[in-house]
Amino acid sequence: MTAPILSERDLEFMLYELFDAESLTQRPRYSDHSRETFNAALQTSQAVAEKFLLPMRQKADNNQPTFDGEKVHMIPEIKTAVDAVVESGLASATADFELGGMQLPGIVANAVSAYLSAAGGVAMGYTALTNANSNLIEAHGTPEQIEKWVVPMRAGRFAGTMAMTEPGAGSGLADLTTTAVKDADGNYRVSGSKIFISGGDHDLNENIVHLVLARVKGAPKGVKGISLFIVPKFLVNDDGSLGERNEVALAGLFHKMGGRAQTSTALSFGEKDGAVGYLVGEENKGLAYMFHMMNEARIMVGTSGAVTALTGYQYSLDYARERPQGRLLSEKDPHSPPVSIIKHPDIRRMLLAQKAYAEGGYALCLLGAQLEDDSRTASSEDERKAAHTLLDFLTPIIKTWPSEYGPKANHFAIQVLGGHGYINEHPVEQLYRDNRLNPIHEGTTGIQSLDLLGRKVPMKDFAGYSACLGEMAKTIAIAKQSEALSSYADELAAAIVTLKKTTETVLGATQSMNIDAAFSNSVKYLELFGNVVIAWMWLKQGIVADQALAKQPHESDEHFYRGKLQALQYFFRVELPEIYHWAKLVSDLDTTNFDMREEWF
Amino acid sequence: MTAPILSERDLEFMLYELFDAESLTQRPRYSDHSRETFNAALQTSQAVAEKFLLPMRQKADNNQPTFDGEKVHMIPEIKTAVDAVVESGLASATADFELGGMQLPGIVANAVSAYLSAAGGVAMGYTALTNANSNLIEAHGTPEQIEKWVVPMRAGRFAGTMAMTEPGAGSGLADLTTTAVKDADGNYRVSGSKIFISGGDHDLNENIVHLVLARVKGAPKGVKGISLFIVPKFLVNDDGSLGERNEVALAGLFHKMGGRAQTSTALSFGEKDGAVGYLVGEENKGLAYMFHMMNEARIMVGTSGAVTALTGYQYSLDYARERPQGRLLSEKDPHSPPVSIIKHPDIRRMLLAQKAYAEGGYALCLLGAQLEDDSRTASSEDERKAAHTLLDFLTPIIKTWPSEYGPKANHFAIQVLGGHGYINEHPVEQLYRDNRLNPIHEGTTGIQSLDLLGRKVPMKDFAGYSACLGEMAKTIAIAKQSEALSSYADELAAAIVTLKKTTETVLGATQSMNIDAAFSNSVKYLELFGNVVIAWMWLKQGIVADQALAKQPHESDEHFYRGKLQALQYFFRVELPEIYHWAKLVSDLDTTNFDMREEWF
Repeated sequence: MTAPILSERDLEFMLYELFDAESLTQRPRYSDHSRETFNAALQTSQAVAEKFLLPMRQKADNNQPTFDGEKVHMIPEIKTAVDAVVESGLASATADFELGGMQLPGIVANAVSAYLSAAGGVAMGYTALTNANSNLIEAHGTPEQIEKWVVPMRAGRFAGTMAMTEPGAGSGLADLTTTAVKDADGNYRVSGSKIFISGGDHDLNENIVHLVLARVKGAPKGVKGISLFIVPKFLVNDDGSLGERNEVALAGLFHKMGGRAQTSTALSFGEKDGAVGYLVGEENKGLAYMFHMMNEARIMVGTSGAVTALTGYQYSLDYARERPQGRLLSEKDPHSPPVSIIKHPDIRRMLLAQKAYAEGGYALCLLGAQLEDDSRTASSEDERKAAHTLLDFLTPIIKTWPSEYGPKANHFAIQVLGGHGYINEHPVEQLYRDNRLNPIHEGTTGIQSLDLLGRKVPMKDFAGYSACLGEMAKTIAIAKQSEALSSYADELAAAIVTLKKTTETVLGATQSMNIDAAFSNSVKYLELFGNVVIAWMWLKQGIVADQALAKQPHESDEHFYRGKLQALQYFFRVELPEIYHWAKLVSDLDTTNFDMREEWF
Repeated sequence: MTAPILSERDLEFMLYELFDAESLTQRPRYSDHSRETFNAALQTSQAVAEKFLLPMRQKADNNQPTFDGEKVHMIPEIKTAVDAVVESGLASATADFELGGMQLPGIVANAVSAYLSAAGGVAMGYTALTNANSNLIEAHGTPEQIEKWVVPMRAGRFAGTMAMTEPGAGSGLADLTTTAVKDADGNYRVSGSKIFISGGDHDLNENIVHLVLARVKGAPKGVKGISLFIVPKFLVNDDGSLGERNEVALAGLFHKMGGRAQTSTALSFGEKDGAVGYLVGEENKGLAYMFHMMNEARIMVGTSGAVTALTGYQYSLDYARERPQGRLLSEKDPHSPPVSIIKHPDIRRMLLAQKAYAEGGYALCLLGAQLEDDSRTASSEDERKAAHTLLDFLTPIIKTWPSEYGPKANHFAIQVLGGHGYINEHPVEQLYRDNRLNPIHEGTTGIQSLDLLGRKVPMKDFAGYSACLGEMAKTIAIAKQSEALSSYADELAAAIVTLKKTTETVLGATQSMNIDAAFSNSVKYLELFGNVVIAWMWLKQGIVADQALAKQPHESDEHFYRGKLQALQYFFRVELPEIYHWAKLVSDLDTTNFDMREEWF
């Protein structure tokens, strides 16, 4: 099999033709960059991915980390790979030059890390989490904290985690019980249990910097009494050398269906005197700091869903081209040789669906990354605020749609391979398992749907919602100008009319009925909005392809753009129309779910 | 966790209230049976499942069989469990008393084996395949072959397999190349490679009886030149003792995503002189013999899909009742205690969906088993033929719908558990992996869709199709009499009108357009027909529940029947209406998939 892990042509299309990432080099922060430096980063990432990650993908899956009661053991290839990522600079792609980063725009960094994600899946979770942890301390920590914790993390000496979830609380952060007590030194002593902490213990780095949500004794109940602490595995002396072991104990490893290269741990903080912790920012503002990073974290999850789908698509496409089996129904001669399975219409359906899900979903993730860039580096304050508002609004969709449709794409990748897709000779079954986490972590699909309907739509007097509809209207206006696209433009416009009516109905209903009943189809609403947004992403891609075709490109590009238009057609014919039934359920205020009684199950 | 592996109340409902299995005791073949003997078999199965299968479910998953180049090694619990199933008589539940069987009706045997399937998953594949192999030889072999091979299989001394698939052919049986040459003794020498042979080698039994599809030298090409052979691992002397090792070599084991307790093997036949094989029936009729058993095999796959969904549903239901997390949106007090997650409407949605998929799909599988019974033991030849025709028609739907919706149900089971669903502390992630095989084996979903549209619908001048519509019309007529059900009856009737129009359009189109283009949405047609049939199953269940409620049952039964009606409502509101979009795609003769060109991907 010679399947690429990602299509280079498609990444180029996404970055430079669809989103014009090159224009970012005109912004001061990126003025040292050029398309050449962006491409160099992409090539480095591809090389590291192919050399260090791809060869260990299956081995790490077959040999998940183990815990002997004292230490975590993992195959040495994971450390080699993590070190290679750090040494190549890819681990801190967006960080400042002066902190050892590559200072790349988020949209470019997203594509760069896509190679790592596609080839090694979650092994890169170690560096991604360290990066997220560093970003948070950079944003909210003191200069001393940055010096002490972030600099060694950026250098690859230390790793970082996010320690939020607790056994008794799960997604309900309001109920978390880990406590912090101020000690004589002005630091805190942190005690409690955390679970599902990715990278919570290992020997890949000298030290691990946990960012821990905890409650200072006497703090208000609920989400308003949560503070954020730096709790390192080893204390660090003023000269930067490691001090004594802090009270952070590994209680156990979880064994996951997929993503097995990355440890998922249960951690016990402060079993004796309390683990030493350092407050980040102010007391009781911990959740706000954490949520400050949440848009990025959620784009990362969506991206993982989409990229895992892109990889499975490339693999099953290659298989379908190579594998001869069966004959077309129209073949009259039963003794004719078998055809490549890509000739069977149903195989094409499953490949087209994968293309539509993966490339549509990934385009949305890149839009999210672009909005994140704009919210930080657009030239005017108004532009930055507008980008932030739109991103805030879109985040539950960016997190969810690729998370839900990525595994569906991987389902089709397996199905294209048939029995061969179910065994570990081929990576598609692993991709399917790896991808199944994405609808769960960083807020489940159900939680995202309530965030969208209950918070993001009405937020700031519907500012994000209106901005989203406005952006879609601009795309529709452009597409209307094209003979090839105007009917799709009309279909998207019609879908938006339905979306608006549905939104008004369901939000209006909360005035007169129980909100739990009114919102009991919130996931259908999220699916509806998601399909509309992905249709928009396809129409945007269609515009680029249509304009490129008008310039009579060379043959391989012509095929590429025709493929985009066919995937657009697939999405509009097969997937978009699903929304009308979902919209009806939501706007009929159907309460079947709500009315189901516990004792009837 | 105290989740039952299956709901006893629901099995009782299905067998005795929905399908009246008790009436089968009036048939001569089952006259020694009674509801008491049926229940005794169910209880035996539940006891064996809980004692021998459930405790090894995860262990077998974590310790899949290995091959050291000479022998297959597996955890000893598998042999203990297989022996327990054989000794309890459950392995030959439908076989004649005189062959050591329990002579149970197929519908009862299906429910009996559901416990084994739910608790041990595929470990029971060993006995199920041995049973299927025995059934085939009983139907088409000589009395001597039955004596020599079936009797020891029924006794648990020998195991049996089905060896169809080849590396170069996959689902394309027309292209299989394993050869057979007649030898001086009148036997055959068989040579070739087979893959994905479940239970192809192990030490659970003294001997393994492979049923091998092969081509006699000089036979016609294609499917008309395939013969069926008994090829044992060890030859057997006339006194029944084992003779020398036959030329059947294990070439390797496949490592599957799920179903790991059961070996999946690559076998090499006749590497030297050819493996000794014994012809079953006549030359060149092998495929017909194999397909004779195909309805049963396909019901078995559908049943596996449905039962694995039933088990995941019970588990996630129990979890949702026990797990406190979060608050309802309508809760004004943020400091109120967390509620059981079953109180959240979206959790109820995911539980209701599982109930609708699992119980709807399982009802269809039992209908298939009942038709199989009727095709063999109904009192008149006409009834037997009618049952056979309807079963033949429904088989692609019975195979596919529960196979596709079973994994969807398991997806929701994981989602109900959140992060806990993704780790192996709970069985739902294993169920999800186990179930993923079902849309693949015994004919993929794509193949089933072409079987339905191209063969089963027009077969015998639309006899099966018309019979199916006729049966649905009868149910509708009954439901129309009930105030609670008449609107559902109308909805099903409307769905059938759409189904009929769609059928006429797509079959009519083959007169004027390329059949590959016309059938390029065949899977959507299968999905459409499937949802209509499952809606029918729910309406049938609704009629029973509605009539039972009219009799004012005691409280727990009232809750049970209300749950049935709510699941019916869920299916009709949420799932059935999906068909209108699918029907439009099919009857618009949309050729998006067909038109996609290979070079555009």
